[in-house]
Amino acid sequence: MTPPPSPRPPGDASADAALLDPNRVRLRRITEVLPAKMKQYGIDAWLTFTREGATDALGWDVAADRVVGRAACLFGFLGGRLARVAICASYDVTPFIESGLYEQVVPYKREGIGPHLKEWLDKLDPRKVAINFSRDAPNIDGITLGMYRYLLEVAGAGFEEKLVSAEALMMSVKGVKLPEEVAAIEQAAVATQRILREALSLERITPGRTTELDVGRYLEQRTNELGFKVSFISVVVGPDRGHADPTDRVIAHGDLLRTDFGVFHQGYSSDIQRTAYLLRPGERQPPDAVRRMWDTTLRANRAAIAAMKPGVQAVKVDAAARQVIVEAGYDEYPHAAGHAIGIKVHDTGPVLGPDWKERYGTLVRHGLEEGQVFAVEPMIYHDLPEVGGVVQVGLEEDVVIERSGARVLGTPQTELWLLE
Amino acid sequence: MTPPPSPRPPGDASADAALLDPNRVRLRRITEVLPAKMKQYGIDAWLTFTREGATDALGWDVAADRVVGRAACLFGFLGGRLARVAICASYDVTPFIESGLYEQVVPYKREGIGPHLKEWLDKLDPRKVAINFSRDAPNIDGITLGMYRYLLEVAGAGFEEKLVSAEALMMSVKGVKLPEEVAAIEQAAVATQRILREALSLERITPGRTTELDVGRYLEQRTNELGFKVSFISVVVGPDRGHADPTDRVIAHGDLLRTDFGVFHQGYSSDIQRTAYLLRPGERQPPDAVRRMWDTTLRANRAAIAAMKPGVQAVKVDAAARQVIVEAGYDEYPHAAGHAIGIKVHDTGPVLGPDWKERYGTLVRHGLEEGQVFAVEPMIYHDLPEVGGVVQVGLEEDVVIERSGARVLGTPQTELWLLE
Repeated sequence: MTPPPSPRPPGDASADAALLDPNRVRLRRITEVLPAKMKQYGIDAWLTFTREGATDALGWDVAADRVVGRAACLFGFLGGRLARVAICASYDVTPFIESGLYEQVVPYKREGIGPHLKEWLDKLDPRKVAINFSRDAPNIDGITLGMYRYLLEVAGAGFEEKLVSAEALMMSVKGVKLPEEVAAIEQAAVATQRILREALSLERITPGRTTELDVGRYLEQRTNELGFKVSFISVVVGPDRGHADPTDRVIAHGDLLRTDFGVFHQGYSSDIQRTAYLLRPGERQPPDAVRRMWDTTLRANRAAIAAMKPGVQAVKVDAAARQVIVEAGYDEYPHAAGHAIGIKVHDTGPVLGPDWKERYGTLVRHGLEEGQVFAVEPMIYHDLPEVGGVVQVGLEEDVVIERSGARVLGTPQTELWLLE
Repeated sequence: MTPPPSPRPPGDASADAALLDPNRVRLRRITEVLPAKMKQYGIDAWLTFTREGATDALGWDVAADRVVGRAACLFGFLGGRLARVAICASYDVTPFIESGLYEQVVPYKREGIGPHLKEWLDKLDPRKVAINFSRDAPNIDGITLGMYRYLLEVAGAGFEEKLVSAEALMMSVKGVKLPEEVAAIEQAAVATQRILREALSLERITPGRTTELDVGRYLEQRTNELGFKVSFISVVVGPDRGHADPTDRVIAHGDLLRTDFGVFHQGYSSDIQRTAYLLRPGERQPPDAVRRMWDTTLRANRAAIAAMKPGVQAVKVDAAARQVIVEAGYDEYPHAAGHAIGIKVHDTGPVLGPDWKERYGTLVRHGLEEGQVFAVEPMIYHDLPEVGGVVQVGLEEDVVIERSGARVLGTPQTELWLLE
């Protein structure tokens, strides 16, 4: 392709028309949210420095998700107000200009990005520059080692000492969703719950015939019919298989059917888990072991949600859920109780996780803020010999943090769904 | 979503069945190509260290493109043979196991990846470890700064001195395509040429009525009809707009219509440019200025292809094309004459570019190898007042390097297509 490539086919261009205008969202966040937060964190400039191949996870937010050559997206105070500058290859200017996000789009040709970036850094003369690297936050760890070394090569002596991680800044700036983003996620969550309710019923499932793949296909087809897009689908019957796609495993009486499913609405993803149990002929209730797993999972989920308030450290949310599960005699789940959602299913924001330094480090230390949106999913992994191995019951709700606490999006699952 | 998320909906699972088996390709490359090349470059171990959010550009090649938590894909000599080890979060094991690429898949839970990675590095005890970073090659610059610092934290003192860039190794290992990969690209190129030939005709274009978007939609529809998938589409009438999608600009008599278009076949992308000119009523030939641009572009394209042989430095290919254009009195094109293609449209491989250190650095210094596949596209950007600005004629061919030189895939364009 020509250096000006067009990564999105025209089919996507028309789909874009239906999206919440990304340019508007980006511009509002950069102009209405970023400056105050930069001041709060003592940051003079924020730099995203990326290129095609390993595009920065925050590339979308600065309209750099379609660049080919090296691009610098630089926001810094100049005379007390925020200057917004993009520097990019001459063939990459169009998306930056069209985004409306920048006051200046500076193109480079054979001289490369270096001299222009150096000039702008000199002009802004920041004491403290946030760049996108983080030990613990994948979505804020976008700068590659090659780009980092090139940045030091370009910016000159003493620059490295000015650099700080954008982690805390972005947890807040990108973690907090605008009202229109919350609305999009809420509509996605409501649709997801509806589709799952339809799918996990005897109208859709014939025990002994329907497979996991059949359920997956129904979820996909129904999502498209209703005008949404599939974000991800997991349908698991029987023992947990970890990170796996639906298979041709047939669903039978006595099965636990666990679904983990999200849809995109206006570019934003939901993330909902539901579980159903298929009663055996003559059975009126699921086995006690299953019932007890469900009840405990439900209590853990509600304990997490009850703990969520502005200012509460993320680790406390996980602790509330983990305690319920451990006190009931189950093993701890080997991961966090929840994560931010947004344009990604694992979006930028605090992680509702335990204090395991190796795994989560600082991610669980951030405080919750009004406007952050999370998927909450404490879980039990438990060996049930009657099911043939380690199973989970899936229960996951999406919530938004409001002034007084967490509000659940849509209608939460309150009882194990029984199919008979 | 649960920590074991399923990023691909089931619809993709069925599409996968039609793909060239990625597991087979990966395994062949790792077992049949990698060991000898590691020895050639004096590399004792190759490590891809990545996670979700900014997944390494070489993640596909080591089956790490679906990981969530930190994952280490480690290949190193142990007792003279290549050990293949993946270390990943407990919920990420399935794709690694299913890939068949690893002898050992080591899961971690709350202790994190650190102790396991340290143990394996100690066991392999390499003197020289290649990791995926590069100043100049985006596709070999996958390790993020956060992951790099974490690696140093985990591996302990003295490890940094053992690290070298995987650039040269991967230019060769990943740059050289297996015969079945070449075949897939060739079929994609042939289909692309066919679809473009159909699209750029008066059967599809009514001057004064058809728009760029109409042409784009036809390309997409026809691609799907023929069982391929769109890789990217660019359709430009009139002056160059850089990196832009098709618009509702109407195609008229006297227009140059330039297309840059690729399709996926079995997961591999073509990349072809074609140009047509719509004669004005009474016109038998395009204006001299257009004709001269076309002839020069064609000669430059053929000069580049003629220069391509195993062992030839990539910069020499660009020089051959650039010379034709400059000698004809046109400005130099502000980019490379070509790039590798494969599972990405800009794939890993030498860049057929000029010796501009800032832009291309070492990328143009690598020698061509048998089995590498390139898109060749030297171009002219020239101000044609009669068209209203700077225009290009698009001519781009896909070629594979064979023992005796470059072989063009499919049927090259030899004349400017005239629509009257």
